[in-house]
Parts: sequence; C-alpha cells; structure tokens
Amino acid sequence: MARDFTTRKDDFPQWYNDIVIKADLAENSAVRGCMVIKPYGYAIWEKMQGALDKMFKDTGHQNAYFPLLIPKSFLSKEADHVEGFAKECAVVTHYRLKSDPKGGVMVDETAKLEEELIIRPTSETIIWNSYKKWINSYRDLPLLINQWANVVRWEMRTRLFLRTTEFLWQEGHTAHATREEAEEETERMLSVYADFAENFMAVPVLKGIKTANERFAGAEETYCIEALMQDGKSLQAGTSHFLGQNFAKAFDVKFTDKDGSLSHVWATSWGVSTRLIGALIMAHSDDDGLVLPPKLAPIQVVIIPIYKSDEELDAITIEAEKLKKDLEDRGVSVKYDNRDTQKPGWKFAEYEFKGVPVRVAIGPRDLENGTVEIARRDTKEKSTQQMEGVGAVIANLLDEIQKNLYDRALKFRDDNTVEVDTYDEFKEVISGKGGFVLAHWDGEAETELKIKTETKATIRLIPMTDRSGPGKCIYTGNPSEFKVVFAKSY
Amino acid sequence: MARDFTTRKDDFPQWYNDIVIKADLAENSAVRGCMVIKPYGYAIWEKMQGALDKMFKDTGHQNAYFPLLIPKSFLSKEADHVEGFAKECAVVTHYRLKSDPKGGVMVDETAKLEEELIIRPTSETIIWNSYKKWINSYRDLPLLINQWANVVRWEMRTRLFLRTTEFLWQEGHTAHATREEAEEETERMLSVYADFAENFMAVPVLKGIKTANERFAGAEETYCIEALMQDGKSLQAGTSHFLGQNFAKAFDVKFTDKDGSLSHVWATSWGVSTRLIGALIMAHSDDDGLVLPPKLAPIQVVIIPIYKSDEELDAITIEAEKLKKDLEDRGVSVKYDNRDTQKPGWKFAEYEFKGVPVRVAIGPRDLENGTVEIARRDTKEKSTQQMEGVGAVIANLLDEIQKNLYDRALKFRDDNTVEVDTYDEFKEVISGKGGFVLAHWDGEAETELKIKTETKATIRLIPMTDRSGPGKCIYTGNPSEFKVVFAKSY
Repeated sequence: MARDFTTRKDDFPQWYNDIVIKADLAENSAVRGCMVIKPYGYAIWEKMQGALDKMFKDTGHQNAYFPLLIPKSFLSKEADHVEGFAKECAVVTHYRLKSDPKGGVMVDETAKLEEELIIRPTSETIIWNSYKKWINSYRDLPLLINQWANVVRWEMRTRLFLRTTEFLWQEGHTAHATREEAEEETERMLSVYADFAENFMAVPVLKGIKTANERFAGAEETYCIEALMQDGKSLQAGTSHFLGQNFAKAFDVKFTDKDGSLSHVWATSWGVSTRLIGALIMAHSDDDGLVLPPKLAPIQVVIIPIYKSDEELDAITIEAEKLKKDLEDRGVSVKYDNRDTQKPGWKFAEYEFKGVPVRVAIGPRDLENGTVEIARRDTKEKSTQQMEGVGAVIANLLDEIQKNLYDRALKFRDDNTVEVDTYDEFKEVISGKGGFVLAHWDGEAETELKIKTETKATIRLIPMTDRSGPGKCIYTGNPSEFKVVFAKSY
Repeated sequence: MARDFTTRKDDFPQWYNDIVIKADLAENSAVRGCMVIKPYGYAIWEKMQGALDKMFKDTGHQNAYFPLLIPKSFLSKEADHVEGFAKECAVVTHYRLKSDPKGGVMVDETAKLEEELIIRPTSETIIWNSYKKWINSYRDLPLLINQWANVVRWEMRTRLFLRTTEFLWQEGHTAHATREEAEEETERMLSVYADFAENFMAVPVLKGIKTANERFAGAEETYCIEALMQDGKSLQAGTSHFLGQNFAKAFDVKFTDKDGSLSHVWATSWGVSTRLIGALIMAHSDDDGLVLPPKLAPIQVVIIPIYKSDEELDAITIEAEKLKKDLEDRGVSVKYDNRDTQKPGWKFAEYEFKGVPVRVAIGPRDLENGTVEIARRDTKEKSTQQMEGVGAVIANLLDEIQKNLYDRALKFRDDNTVEVDTYDEFKEVISGKGGFVLAHWDGEAETELKIKTETKATIRLIPMTDRSGPGKCIYTGNPSEFKVVFAKSY
C-alpha cells in the first residue's frame, strides 16, 4: 500500500491532521475555526457520551438544558469570570436580516438588540441565574445537574478537535450546602473523568490541581486530569472546578438551612469535550492510521469476504452472518463488508486506517478448513483460528486489545516521566524528548511564568498524592515542599 | 388537595402553561424567548431522542454534527430559502468584548467580523456546502445523515416548548441519485414520525402534504403529520421535505452516475423538535396535571410507603425494594420515594401532577394482607392487588395505559373531525368547538388565504390517501377534486 500520509516522526502535527481527515473523523468548515464532525468521528463521540452519561447518572446527576445565549451583563457579574471569558466571545447584536439592494441579504439595522447576547463560552452565569430561583432551602440541595451542549470560544489558531471555535461538551453544575460537600463533588467528578479516560479511552492520566495561573476563571481550585501524548506533550483531558461561593454570591443564591440560618451555597462545575477525541488519536494511533480502543470503536469487528465467484461469496456470507450474529449476541458491534465495488486489499487498508480493532477475513480455503483469519489492529498480529468457537475468541481478544492499549500507553508515560533536580536538566528534557518532568517549584506564579517563557513548559498539575519530599526550586533555589509536574502542552 | 391551577375549560393556554411550570418541565429564562428545559422535561426529551435515534439508525442513517454558525451569504444561495429564514435570525457581528470604562463589558468595535454569521435557523445551507465535497460519484449515494442540534429562530411571541427562540431538534439531510429515491425517503421518514407519534407518544396523526403557502422555504413538497390537541387546534408534529434539486443546484452538488453522466443530486430534509413535548402535554393531560404515556415517562412507576413508625417503614422498604427490582428486571423505570420530608398525601398529589403512569402505595395493612394498592394516572382507577405476582400485573397495566391513551386520543379526534359542504357550516365548526374540518377547496392559494383571514383556519394538509370524491370549493364554488383538512393551529 502506497503511503500517502505523514509519519509521527516526520511531522507529528501533520500526522495528526492526516489521521483526522483521512479516517473521516472531521474536517474544517466554511466558518473559520468551526469543524464538521463527520459520521465516523461523531460515532466515537456518541460512544463517549453514552459511557459518560451513564457514569454521571450513576453518581446522581440529571441532565437539563439552558439557553445558548447569555445577556452580556451576566458575564461581568463574577469578576474573575469576565476576565477569562469576555475576550473570546461571539456576540449577537441583531435579530433580523433584510434584502440587500446590491443582492443577497444584509443586517437590518432597525433590529438591533438593546443588550447584546453572547453565545455561551461556558454556562455558569446563565445557570446560576436559574439556580437563584431553584434553590431556597436545604431540601433543594444538593442540586446535581449536567448539560450536553455546544459552546463557542473565539480562537485565532485552531486545530481539529483540539482547539476549535465551536465544540461539543458536557458541563456539570452543582450546588451544595457545605464547602466539604462541594469539595467532595469536585474530586468525585475528577475521579469519574479519570475512570473514563483509563477504562474507556485506555489512556492513563495523572490527577492533580492546577496552579493559580492555569485555574478556571471564577474557581477557587481547578482539578484536572492530564494525559501524555506520543509527541511528549501533555493534554488536559478534563477539569473539575471547586467554585467556592463565587457564583452564589455573584447571583445571590442563598438557602435556608435546617437551623433556619441563611447562607450562600457552594458550587462546582466540571467538563470534558470533543477534545477527548484528539487525545484518543494522539495517545494510540500509529503510522498506519487510527488505533481505537474497543470500548469506543464504532465498529469493533469487521468481516471481509475474499472470493472470486458469486458462489464463493454466497458460501462465505452464510458463515460471516453466523459469526456476526454470534458476536452481536455478545454485545460486539460488527460490520460485514461485502460490497463488490472494492477489492479486499482496499478494504484491509481502509479498516486498518480507521482503527477497527479486529479484522476477520474469510476465503474459500477457510471454508474448506473450517477456519478464519484474524488480525488485530494494535499489534498487527494475524492468526488463523478455528471457525468453531471463534466468537468467544474474538470477544476475549477485544478485552485483550483494550488492556494492551492501556498498558502500552502507561509504559510510554512511565518511560517519558523523569524527575530532575536542576534547571539545566529540566531544559534538556523539555527541549528534547519532552514528557512529564517532575521538578521542585517555589510556588510563585512569577517563577512559573518565567519558566514558561524560557522553555514553553508549564506546570500541568500539582500532585494530590504520592508527593515527593521537600527540596529547592529548580529556577530560584527557594524552598519547595514537593515536586510538581511540568510539560509542554496542547 | 386545593386546586391552584387552571382547568382546560377555563383557559386552555393558561392550563398548558401551568402544567409546564408546575410539573417542572421548563421555564422562561433571562433571555427573551429562550427556555430552560428542567431535568424532568429534559428526561422526556431524552426518551424521545432515544426512540427516534434508534428508528433513524434502523433506517440506515448516521449522525454527524455541522457548525452552529452560518456565513450570511450562504442563506441567499437558495432563493426561496432566504425569503423564509432571513427574517428571523440571530446575527453575530463581533467576536470580542472589552472592559467598559463605565463598568461591565462592551462590544469591542475593532473585533468586527468581515462577514456576519447567522446562528442556524436550520442547516440546509451549511450542510449542502459540505456535501459538495463529500459527493462525487454514485458510490457516495445515498448519503443519509441526521444531526441533533439547537437552532435559533427569532420569535416575537413565544410559548414554552411550542414556540421558542432557541429549540432543540433533529434535522435529517439526505442526498440521492434519483428523484424517486428522494421521494421515497421523504415518505419513509414521514412514516417514521407517524409511527413514533402513534406508538411512543400515543398521539394519532394525520399524514399529508402541505399547500404551497405552508411549504418549507426551499422545498418542492412538504409532507407533515398533524395531531389534534384537546382545544380543537391542530399541531404540526413533524415535517419531511422533498427538496428536489434546489439545494444541489444552489451549492453545485453533482455526481457521476454509473454511465458516466453528471447530474445534480436529489435531496430531502426532515425534522422534529422539543415542540413534541408541547404536543404530548396538550394531547393527554387533564385538569389534575400532566398525563404521560408509559413509553415516554421518565418514571413509569412510583412506590410510596405509608407508615407511622420507622419499624413500619423498614418492613415496607423490604417489600418495596423487592418489587422495584422485579419491575426493573422487566425494563420498567421505578422510583421508590421514601423521603421522610414529605407526607404520603403530598407525594400522591406530586406524582399525579407529574403524570407518573402508575402509583403503588404500600402500608402496614398491605403488609399484613400481602397486598398493594395500585392507582393508574390515566383513569384514576385504584385497585388492591396481591403482592405476589404484582410485577407482571403492573407491566401489563403499563401497556394497557399506553393503549388507552392512544385510543382515547383517537376517539377524541374522531369525535372532532367533521366533513362540511358549505362555508357557513365550516365557519360554525371552526368558530365553535374546532377540530379537523374536511372541506372542498379549489386549489388556489388566494382562496386559502381568504379563508384564513376570515376564520383563522388554515389547510393543515392535503390527504395522501382516503381522499373523498370531487365536489365544489366551499368558498368559491369552483370545482375541487377531493376534500382537504382545515383547522386552526399552533
């Protein structure tokens, strides 16, 4: 097969873009920075949504839907929030077009809004404006709500899935009677994200706390999960924010407690987005295309017939349909591709590129011998198996592939995590193969920014557990309680 | 229980609004015309989405996602389309805010878009702009895509679910090699909608064709399903459009056929929205609140313990949890409400108002006798049943309720469908109890508009089957091939 796309080593960003485009996941649209998520890419998102939505509901959350448009004045109600989000908003100023005498349509200046509306970049403000009405008593708490929605943040430099002007996400917004409950919720949802990343995406993640520089605008504390990509850069895969009473105060949301006292409620918010699809690609895929973990693969098994005559195809189809049924009964999603418009070799390459975990080929020789040929996408290994009982073999193989992808990614991360004690070592690693670099830091925002300016590396997170002992900041030599995790990032 | 809401007879619109608000389905937001869909309302939408999405996939469609924002110039590419949709658009003109010296934030005039962007009122234009790249050969056809999305149409007079500035919907957009295939698809999706309305919503619908006046802007033919509400008005519950080659020509989408010839493709689009929740309410609910068909009820069965002591509650809980498990194993969604913050009477009223199809009450006497009390929401009938085997009884009862709601709505429609032969009769019915009125019409748009002006009734649809014999137009006396269906409408 002629290679018509880039390798990871040659040009990682180009390799990534080639996969997104050629595996039919997404493409750029006519609107700068906005992508079209194509059916195959959207099917991965649907799998992600399905798994996450169940995890949210299992932890007591309900879905709801709040307006796309937010009055401009709402954004300024929480002082930090406006700083973080007002700069990159799509602003609706008019509500009507009219015929342009020069042809086409033009804005009708008589239909100007009194107050401009912002397309939500995130929904804290519009949601807390509702919560004011919903929360009166301790009986109304906790309020545990999630929303699946699109958001818009105007971006100058965009990359498919990783950074787009419009993206799809979920945003959880909860309200609690006490600080402790809200903090627990923040950590609980971080754990849900870590669980999802590791058990569905097969991507190991570090959990931790962001520094003030990287904190969500309006949060008291931002927790995050970070995953290492194959180019040695870190990707923030999910965040969970402890918002303290900031939004409750901004929107005056109080509740009467059991003892009759009136207090502001405590809040969290947390979200993951279609960016996760970018993480999935960069964590597992190889120079032959996409590699998908079975739990998120829209097609888990593809069966391809190899035949010369219609009679051969008919005989193969009988066996293929039997196997398909057997696998579907086991909950496996199967495609039998008997299109006669493409040759087997073309199909092999196509499904390999699209990352289908298991390929089954059945030819006339297999029919004679009662066998099938099985190829796994992750290792490229092929084997001939007895047709009898092959359904169970494939089901097990899918579990094995899921596990192997995780183990491989974990080994990669371990191989690319180093501890350093000097700034020279630090710079050498960061400018070299990258990866996670544990180093002492004096806790000053200024030090962090200087390191960022000089090396492009940022503190990805402050570990919550397994902290090192004390030492000296690699940059200033000032005392440090424990090491933090640096990396270049997406 | 003290009645604190309106009856249907007193004030139907107020009754409707009371149900939406007091059953916690939705509420108005701070943005004029945009609603907040609350968890209970959203759970109904999720049930609808689940059923429809499966039906779309079973008929070969895939989901995808296209941008929220559409370049202004795209709207004018299809001549009829722009007339229909340019008037009521939210227009994005800027992409940044800045601090206002007077406090708060203001639009940054330096961040003005070169070309304004429109928030999608429907996505034909942005989608056909993509299809131009996706379709080259007959091998790429049919292209069968659906999108779940939010859309914005600026509305002056809004009503929760029925007419809101932003609403949620799905929009199918398909491309075909021949006119016949596209026409088949248009009718197929209309049938899917009718099937969903009748078998899930328990709402009987008429299927038919819209007149030119009521046709989708850009369609050659609009098919619709219409449902009769309890106030005698019709509600358009879904539309399926045969778009001919209009959008293919506007966006220059051609394909090479097997014989090497180049032709424009044929198109359809079809959609239903959160408006269906409004239809659901107005078709079934009564003066005691919401009535939900079991297939779309977020909670199908509620179990309420009646107790004085903790010991009684503990004993009841054992039986309740057993029944809950039994029902859940049958695929029934059950809530056991053992909150001690509310009394049984309050809970009875609450779940009745929220339309939970079956209520089970268990008290100490029931424990002694091995019984439970079952109440059905549709007829308000109560019965005492043996605890033993009651899971199967309730599962059957849910089916019976589903059927009863449909039968009741069908009887209502039959009782409120009349044929008339004169304009006097017509006016009497329309200004009286309303309903569907079958009458001869001469086929002229002008006649239709005159009747609308004089009576507020419009032609809801031209029947596709079961057409009457020929006659004379009730308004002009001119010849008519068959009767059409008139009604006042939402």
